[in-house]
Amino acid sequence: MSKNIFFERKGPFSIKNLFNNKNLKDLKITDVKTLDKAGSSEITFFDSVKYKDIAETTKAGCCITTKKLENYLPQNCLKILTKSVLFELAVITRKFYPNADIDYPDKSLKKPKKSNFNKVKFGNNVLIGKNVKLGKNTIIGSNTIIEQNVSIGANCVIGSSVIIKNSIIGDKVVIQDGCKVGLKGFGFIPLKEKNLRFPHIGKVILKDNVELGAACTIDRGSVDDTIIGQNTFLDNQVHMAHNVKLGKNCMIAGQVGFAGSSTLGDNVSIGGQAGISGHLRIGNNVKIGGGSGVVKDIEDNTVVMGYPAVPLKEFLKKGNSNE
Amino acid sequence: MSKNIFFERKGPFSIKNLFNNKNLKDLKITDVKTLDKAGSSEITFFDSVKYKDIAETTKAGCCITTKKLENYLPQNCLKILTKSVLFELAVITRKFYPNADIDYPDKSLKKPKKSNFNKVKFGNNVLIGKNVKLGKNTIIGSNTIIEQNVSIGANCVIGSSVIIKNSIIGDKVVIQDGCKVGLKGFGFIPLKEKNLRFPHIGKVILKDNVELGAACTIDRGSVDDTIIGQNTFLDNQVHMAHNVKLGKNCMIAGQVGFAGSSTLGDNVSIGGQAGISGHLRIGNNVKIGGGSGVVKDIEDNTVVMGYPAVPLKEFLKKGNSNE
Amino acid sequence: MSKNIFFERKGPFSIKNLFNNKNLKDLKITDVKTLDKAGSSEITFFDSVKYKDIAETTKAGCCITTKKLENYLPQNCLKILTKSVLFELAVITRKFYPNADIDYPDKSLKKPKKSNFNKVKFGNNVLIGKNVKLGKNTIIGSNTIIEQNVSIGANCVIGSSVIIKNSIIGDKVVIQDGCKVGLKGFGFIPLKEKNLRFPHIGKVILKDNVELGAACTIDRGSVDDTIIGQNTFLDNQVHMAHNVKLGKNCMIAGQVGFAGSSTLGDNVSIGGQAGISGHLRIGNNVKIGGGSGVVKDIEDNTVVMGYPAVPLKEFLKKGNSNE
Repeated sequence: MSKNIFFERKGPFSIKNLFNNKNLKDLKITDVKTLDKAGSSEITFFDSVKYKDIAETTKAGCCITTKKLENYLPQNCLKILTKSVLFELAVITRKFYPNADIDYPDKSLKKPKKSNFNKVKFGNNVLIGKNVKLGKNTIIGSNTIIEQNVSIGANCVIGSSVIIKNSIIGDKVVIQDGCKVGLKGFGFIPLKEKNLRFPHIGKVILKDNVELGAACTIDRGSVDDTIIGQNTFLDNQVHMAHNVKLGKNCMIAGQVGFAGSSTLGDNVSIGGQAGISGHLRIGNNVKIGGGSGVVKDIEDNTVVMGYPAVPLKEFLKKGNSNE
Repeated sequence: MSKNIFFERKGPFSIKNLFNNKNLKDLKITDVKTLDKAGSSEITFFDSVKYKDIAETTKAGCCITTKKLENYLPQNCLKILTKSVLFELAVITRKFYPNADIDYPDKSLKKPKKSNFNKVKFGNNVLIGKNVKLGKNTIIGSNTIIEQNVSIGANCVIGSSVIIKNSIIGDKVVIQDGCKVGLKGFGFIPLKEKNLRFPHIGKVILKDNVELGAACTIDRGSVDDTIIGQNTFLDNQVHMAHNVKLGKNCMIAGQVGFAGSSTLGDNVSIGGQAGISGHLRIGNNVKIGGGSGVVKDIEDNTVVMGYPAVPLKEFLKKGNSNE
Repeated sequence: MSKNIFFERKGPFSIKNLFNNKNLKDLKITDVKTLDKAGSSEITFFDSVKYKDIAETTKAGCCITTKKLENYLPQNCLKILTKSVLFELAVITRKFYPNADIDYPDKSLKKPKKSNFNKVKFGNNVLIGKNVKLGKNTIIGSNTIIEQNVSIGANCVIGSSVIIKNSIIGDKVVIQDGCKVGLKGFGFIPLKEKNLRFPHIGKVILKDNVELGAACTIDRGSVDDTIIGQNTFLDNQVHMAHNVKLGKNCMIAGQVGFAGSSTLGDNVSIGGQAGISGHLRIGNNVKIGGGSGVVKDIEDNTVVMGYPAVPLKEFLKKGNSNE
């Protein structure tokens, strides 16, 4: 049973109490996880047929889902049926994690004690939370804030006025000035007068050699994590929403936007200002032209362009040759 | 006669002196207001037939307008005719407000005295201007700047490295890290060698339960205010220009841009990277697809998509089904 | 032989040693410059037929180029032939400038001594590097960082939380809150596991009366400079990549993005969220509609619109009248 190092977790709760239903079996639930990561004492959710392959092999003890989808789940997984999976999930996740719905500023921030961070160089006015780990030869620029429990590897260069929270960062990572990494994403159940915020209990993982340009915003995962693969470089003002997974050796130009929960392969290049919709699968070696709007899955080795993005040949056929 | 709490106002001025014209009647003018808000001792402006309904019932004592538009105004309103309404308006507004053309940094900023802000929690290095009001249980993150006369309600969570000026903020508002709220907008009269900046004497009003994602820029109004309605949530990197009015319960995804002076209804949802042109009226319950470019008014209950944005059916008819 | 005031330069190196080739003539090279600026003891590069006119008259002593392009260069210029000009250039430039590939935070930052900056007004927590020059009556907002050797003219207003490095800034320049100016651009040779970063040895030049809106990112040049002409105004969240040159009296609306190395004339206006591809020439008096994607050169006095951008008449002919 892994621990969430960034958010205090309540529980365990019996499934009867969680759903306030005495007819449910007496199962003790310790955490909320994704379909692929949940174990027998954990609850998960399944809300789209897109994820049926993972659903079929989940080891989760309990799953919030719909009447239509329940049959994809293993027999021994307790199904909680509802019409609004995400609403139920939000309610349950808030019981386990009552403080992950808003980014409450870290009260443990202090000037770093040099003695705690051997071989780390700090600019002026740096603020560090409790239990932060910084690898050797890492440099932290002025006015930068690194909140509690964040871990940053060796030989990293973190710029000035950067804010990092709820993140695990590898070696030789470069983060340019003004980036915000690990913040709560844009997830909530829209309700008149008072939206219900979805707790963001995931984190951001930046692998070795990642580079983030200036003023990027990389939101942490909601239940899952947001991950950027090794040696992937982002230009300035890129926005990456919760749960996005980006492979190795990718090149993402300025002002690109990623909606939530898309997964991209390795060696993907994306031109400036392109937008990637949510919940998509983009293959390896895909090239996406600048300004494109990607709204469906893309297979490996494809070049796409346009709004909505289509394979390049099709884009040119539509009279967009611009000659 | 309401007071502008954010900008020092000169005057009153006689209309003769303002326009340096002895033939004008001897009217004393105390302030510059919009058509709907100006009173009998105030001056307003009317530069587009779009606003004729408001012009017809204005109570303004004086109005800068054109030969073509003057007949829409009430008889007892003194008309100042010009070919360039905005140029004249800029010149006059600068006489009343000589310090609103540039955001001069607030010289009154200081570390907050805890005794002045009972039940408010501050991070490190917070800077607060004079006469700032902060409601109870509000939290202000580290390195955040709140300039003079700003008022923030109770139970708000303001992140780190946020800058707020010239704003009135309700209760339970969440502003994520790195937002800039209440800055001067992009308004000027283009002149060779030396543009003439339009004073921005308006403010930003954020109603209760508003949420701003990280790194948003919300400009204050020029003569009018910029307003975001109750329970409206914005994602990261949204840009909202001066005078935009956004209704209640709206959802604005990442990197959306609003040009100046558009008015949007309630329950509007806008997909990522969409752009809304200036001076538009968008109705209630409108859905705007990601990446769309909205260039004309949209009626209630409409779904639009595309660049330029058209009703969804039309967009699909154009061969954009992407199948 | 001009000095690079922002980056420490090694050398001179003999051309034999630089390329590890004993057969090359015994030429001493002191610096890396662009085709138009390199002198007889400097090395340059030539990688696109677009630049043949400048190549023909270069005074460079040595030039990295391809077999296909070498004949455009003057006879007395020593040609170094390669298949990957930019890779060779990166390797050579890194020998001259080993510390310009990453923005290492400035270790010389300190609170400004008032006595060194007569008639300059500082907000709180301002940090200034060594040899910074600030003109009289200039105002610097709180939490702003100005790194070593930057020069800012008189009567400027620099906002709060601004970061400026490697820049030469004129008089009466306004930079709004949260801008990042002079950072390393998005330039590297993509290599599996470990991209090779291109050193950015250029600077940013902002001429008199320039205005930058909030949260803009203006990258410095790689070998060349990034330049914004007199009286040009940018709105919020504009991204300008390395080596872009923007003329006088231009108006750039919010969230516009410029890819690298494009040159734009005077009196250009660009609507919100438009994107300008790299290595283009945009003439004088050009108007680019909001949301457009410009992918080829534009002649003087042209109005363009669309994605890809085409002359306005053509855009409307395509059925985009939106009526």
